[in-house]
Amino acid sequence: MKAVVLLSGGLDSATCAYHAKEEGDDLVALTVDYGQRHDKEIACAWDIAKRLGIQHKVLWMPLGAIGGSSLTDLLIPVGHDGVDKMQVPWTYVPARNTILLALAAGLAEVVGAGRIWIGVNAVDYSNYPDCRPEFIGAMKTALRFGTKAGLEGKPIGIEAPLIHMSKAEIITHGLALGVPYGETWSCYEGGEEPCHTCDSCRLREAAFHSLNLEDPINVRDT
Amino acid sequence: MKAVVLLSGGLDSATCAYHAKEEGDDLVALTVDYGQRHDKEIACAWDIAKRLGIQHKVLWMPLGAIGGSSLTDLLIPVGHDGVDKMQVPWTYVPARNTILLALAAGLAEVVGAGRIWIGVNAVDYSNYPDCRPEFIGAMKTALRFGTKAGLEGKPIGIEAPLIHMSKAEIITHGLALGVPYGETWSCYEGGEEPCHTCDSCRLREAAFHSLNLEDPINVRDT
Repeated sequence: MKAVVLLSGGLDSATCAYHAKEEGDDLVALTVDYGQRHDKEIACAWDIAKRLGIQHKVLWMPLGAIGGSSLTDLLIPVGHDGVDKMQVPWTYVPARNTILLALAAGLAEVVGAGRIWIGVNAVDYSNYPDCRPEFIGAMKTALRFGTKAGLEGKPIGIEAPLIHMSKAEIITHGLALGVPYGETWSCYEGGEEPCHTCDSCRLREAAFHSLNLEDPINVRDT
Repeated sequence: MKAVVLLSGGLDSATCAYHAKEEGDDLVALTVDYGQRHDKEIACAWDIAKRLGIQHKVLWMPLGAIGGSSLTDLLIPVGHDGVDKMQVPWTYVPARNTILLALAAGLAEVVGAGRIWIGVNAVDYSNYPDCRPEFIGAMKTALRFGTKAGLEGKPIGIEAPLIHMSKAEIITHGLALGVPYGETWSCYEGGEEPCHTCDSCRLREAAFHSLNLEDPINVRDT
């Protein structure tokens, strides 16, 4: 079926896009340039969409005007002390996945898509509230009631195929699908090379390490 | 309590803002410039916020990139044949209120607001799915699960005080609160003067007429 896939250019969303393609969906990728510190992930999204041969739309919505996050306010530093499962870190962008799913729903209505794919993960993650199954379930209900498609009895679904996978399972799954992980970007700092110490780098590196694999991002030509 | 009020600059949102102020909330108004055809409502929002003496933030998020609506795609004409309760008109902006509530939730998290006020109305309206009580209820649940505030046991509420009022009841209520309706804008066309025939004009004019009142927008100095 026609579907929208949220594609940030990171490891999870790239895997999700390859998974959705494998499922046979006719995909439109949606990337939101929200003013993220690591905006180089957007170039990765372009690359992934091109490799998949799917339509791609980049929306600009500067969430720095709202702020409150290390990723949208450069005055708030990214933490480098490790993942703390007990609290929500400053890299949480307030209501980001609610905003992203809302925008994806708008696009889904316009292109006639029956579902939205999102690469959220609630296992190896930074305790972000909007990556949890209960949130995805609630947003499904909201889209059923809050869209024309839902009113007309054709609700837009939300698929989160990675939500219960560990990061290592995601990578194993993605490698089997041919995901070019060297062309995905995870580091929150968005520097020339990954910083290796932000939450996103730590989760990614621990997963490759547990699989006894070298992360291709560390061996690519620069 | 601290609260965010969604303020478009139209009749309903202005009434909602005055209502929320009357309730004693410490308000931050949020206006979203989404590229609406009738962008003159944004100047009205500035005016209303100034009169109320409240903080005001205008976010720019061009939904024309998604399109699919008369209000964001100028190639899709606004209908002038009357309100049809049986179908969703082209002025419906796909998933607009989902997007607006998501942005308001992000702002609410940053400013520490406990609730969001929204002036949706499901009585004298154009059958927009995202103005109905069941949608508002579902979004409340989504925000409870999808925000840091919700995770920490302080969920962000959503108040829609006008949802069950007729347009005439809204105006009667607003006049008692001192809402300057001559400084609000409803017409979708966004011309020099209201067109009198779009759904928004029709609903507004019928309500003033039923109250035997002249709409102050028709008698103001131009």
